[in-house]
Amino acid sequence: MSVQPIRIRDIAAHAGADVHIRGWVVHHRSSGKIRFLELRDGSGYVQCVMGKNDVAPDVFAAFDDVSLEASVEVVGTVRSDPRSPGGFELGLKHLRVVGRSAEYPISPKEHGVGFLMDERHLWLRSRRQHAMLRVRAEVMRGIREYLDGQDYLPVDAPILTPNACEGTTTLFELGYFERKAYLSQSGQLYNEATAMAFGKVYCFGPTFRAEKSKTRRHLMEFWMVEPEAAFLDLDGDMALAEGMVEHVVQRVLARCRDDLATLERDVTKLESIRAPFPRISYDEAVEIIRKAGGTIEWGEDFGGDEETLLSQAFDKPVLVHRYPAQVKAFYMKRDPERPEVALCVDMIAPEGYGEIVGGGCREESLEALETRIREHGLPLETFKWFLDLRRYGSVPHAGFGLGVERTVAWITGIPHVRETIPFPRLLDRMYP
Amino acid sequence: MSVQPIRIRDIAAHAGADVHIRGWVVHHRSSGKIRFLELRDGSGYVQCVMGKNDVAPDVFAAFDDVSLEASVEVVGTVRSDPRSPGGFELGLKHLRVVGRSAEYPISPKEHGVGFLMDERHLWLRSRRQHAMLRVRAEVMRGIREYLDGQDYLPVDAPILTPNACEGTTTLFELGYFERKAYLSQSGQLYNEATAMAFGKVYCFGPTFRAEKSKTRRHLMEFWMVEPEAAFLDLDGDMALAEGMVEHVVQRVLARCRDDLATLERDVTKLESIRAPFPRISYDEAVEIIRKAGGTIEWGEDFGGDEETLLSQAFDKPVLVHRYPAQVKAFYMKRDPERPEVALCVDMIAPEGYGEIVGGGCREESLEALETRIREHGLPLETFKWFLDLRRYGSVPHAGFGLGVERTVAWITGIPHVRETIPFPRLLDRMYP
Repeated sequence: MSVQPIRIRDIAAHAGADVHIRGWVVHHRSSGKIRFLELRDGSGYVQCVMGKNDVAPDVFAAFDDVSLEASVEVVGTVRSDPRSPGGFELGLKHLRVVGRSAEYPISPKEHGVGFLMDERHLWLRSRRQHAMLRVRAEVMRGIREYLDGQDYLPVDAPILTPNACEGTTTLFELGYFERKAYLSQSGQLYNEATAMAFGKVYCFGPTFRAEKSKTRRHLMEFWMVEPEAAFLDLDGDMALAEGMVEHVVQRVLARCRDDLATLERDVTKLESIRAPFPRISYDEAVEIIRKAGGTIEWGEDFGGDEETLLSQAFDKPVLVHRYPAQVKAFYMKRDPERPEVALCVDMIAPEGYGEIVGGGCREESLEALETRIREHGLPLETFKWFLDLRRYGSVPHAGFGLGVERTVAWITGIPHVRETIPFPRLLDRMYP
Repeated sequence: MSVQPIRIRDIAAHAGADVHIRGWVVHHRSSGKIRFLELRDGSGYVQCVMGKNDVAPDVFAAFDDVSLEASVEVVGTVRSDPRSPGGFELGLKHLRVVGRSAEYPISPKEHGVGFLMDERHLWLRSRRQHAMLRVRAEVMRGIREYLDGQDYLPVDAPILTPNACEGTTTLFELGYFERKAYLSQSGQLYNEATAMAFGKVYCFGPTFRAEKSKTRRHLMEFWMVEPEAAFLDLDGDMALAEGMVEHVVQRVLARCRDDLATLERDVTKLESIRAPFPRISYDEAVEIIRKAGGTIEWGEDFGGDEETLLSQAFDKPVLVHRYPAQVKAFYMKRDPERPEVALCVDMIAPEGYGEIVGGGCREESLEALETRIREHGLPLETFKWFLDLRRYGSVPHAGFGLGVERTVAWITGIPHVRETIPFPRLLDRMYP
């Protein structure tokens, strides 16, 4: 096979020529003296046709070892064929089975999710999972592109931390030589230090919550991007979140039309995701939820049900600002005009996908922050370095965190976050 | 201050105009009726001059609260000044101290590294640390740019894993509800599954090694990029590593000249980092090390001393292939022509910075892999999913891991990896 290998994605550039393709069998059938194969190589799909009279007998016989997900290499002529997906088919000249695949466990019939999750390492080969994870990759690229374009510097926060950012009940704890360490739930505190150094920063990595919840919105390990900027106020923070989400959605629409079609996503719902997004106060949100039948009392945090009711009132993500301070983290700044609320913002995705952004202004006064830490029963000495940021050139600052998996679930329109990450970690699952 | 704020980086576009800048004080002095300030805002540095007769008395008096690392906002006129770094200075009209900074702990005098590491959250504000972390950001962007350009799809590997990739002695262990979990040392095994799904993939995230070593090359938590491709052979793997490292170095040279100057890096040593890199066998490497005075025996792995001796023989990174199979991981493919060596490759950085890349071909035969797992005393059932990749359409494949921090240490020319990551985790350090 002396022809240079190509990827299926590039096949159009080789119309009329011979190409060499390596991949896996998605579908195969025989019809008289004709053999049909559909191949995938990770970049695309192509149909291959082999006639008994067109190839040597041993090449034709190689088809006998072909089965679902067998790996093969083929050489063939690229022929224009309007009936084929992609517009081309391959007239085979050579076929070699590289690795057989006897009794591939995932058949085209329906399987239960538990079974598919056990076979996640193979399930990833399917068309829907391809589409999902390609959208995920574009979401993550879109986030970086947007923040880099706004002059935010990527500065990594640590995963192993000696302190808890938002309480210890949902932390994974481990031994760090002779001490205890926790897996980071958020790069927030560290971002505040780097924002004072670089002005505008973001961290982007895995974060961990040991939540004993089995909902369609929760993972134990998930990816989060967290921008933070010095001198940013609440309006600027909302504009940043809005701009980033708009950019990401429009980028996915521009680059992943085929993937969204595979997932049968109603793209008209995404096309309307353009800034500005509605901005309402927590007070207004409570009224909307109550009118829609919810039973929330002022002062309570929103749960999944409230977020769903709220999202149904809008066809865009909605920015909800100024929650009661008591339901937010200790470092959130109070509204000077109304100290019972925090200068914070959550973004609730449309269509019942829940909170995808949480953030706000951070308390920049040393005295106020020390008081909050004491009120929350947190150890002051652990936060010595964090308090230093208020001792030496403190400035107003703000930021937020956006969860990748919920954002991907919303954009792809699938009901459960577990398919939006290659190897999901759930309450009852850490395999494969 | 009604003028729109700008970042110092963009000052040239405002020559002759008034601008509003917010940042921190790097340097300040008085001379008669003139006050001088140097400001940083994370994007650059600018000198500001204020004459007593040019501003209102309260503005001039605000200078009394100025000290090292106080935060300020200023309005001033951008004046061309060839003597100033950057070519411009600011003639101040307004000055306001936002946050004072009494007795900032890091003075311009020399400090010990232990002290600076305790003050890492503040040390990050210094010129050298800025330069280092900007180079780090460009290295990471360059890696993504190169792999994306080669059609590799970013697919995240999990951090929480039930199995050990290369033995359990250097793993961080934690409780995952009722089970045990380990922090990932490598996304390698998971990449093999996703490479069979997407053809060409990479994961890029934090990895963890609980190594009880205190060397200048080791961190407990570090970032690693790991590309993996189906149908890639050892030569292709070496070409990929070589191309990526060349791209990253040349990108840093193109974008971070000022940062490299700040770090007093000899850039001529980087300018010569062009493919092809020398490729030698382990056997040849042993000879070179012995001639240089090393005492290695064939069959032993290289330590830091051997890598340093080897790097001194070349002015480019050197690719060392075909190590004795016994010093490599169980999944490494043996050379069919010489089964005592593995089809693997390490890249040793120049100037004594050690191994920055490790990789090679993976064993694709089910039988051979099962034998290796047994030989290494690893539990077969934990690797059930990994062995499935050989049961269903196995293909030859290869990849590697590149450590970000060592690469940044080499490119910036600093002796210890601890400064190449914002918050280093060392044997004796997890704070801040």
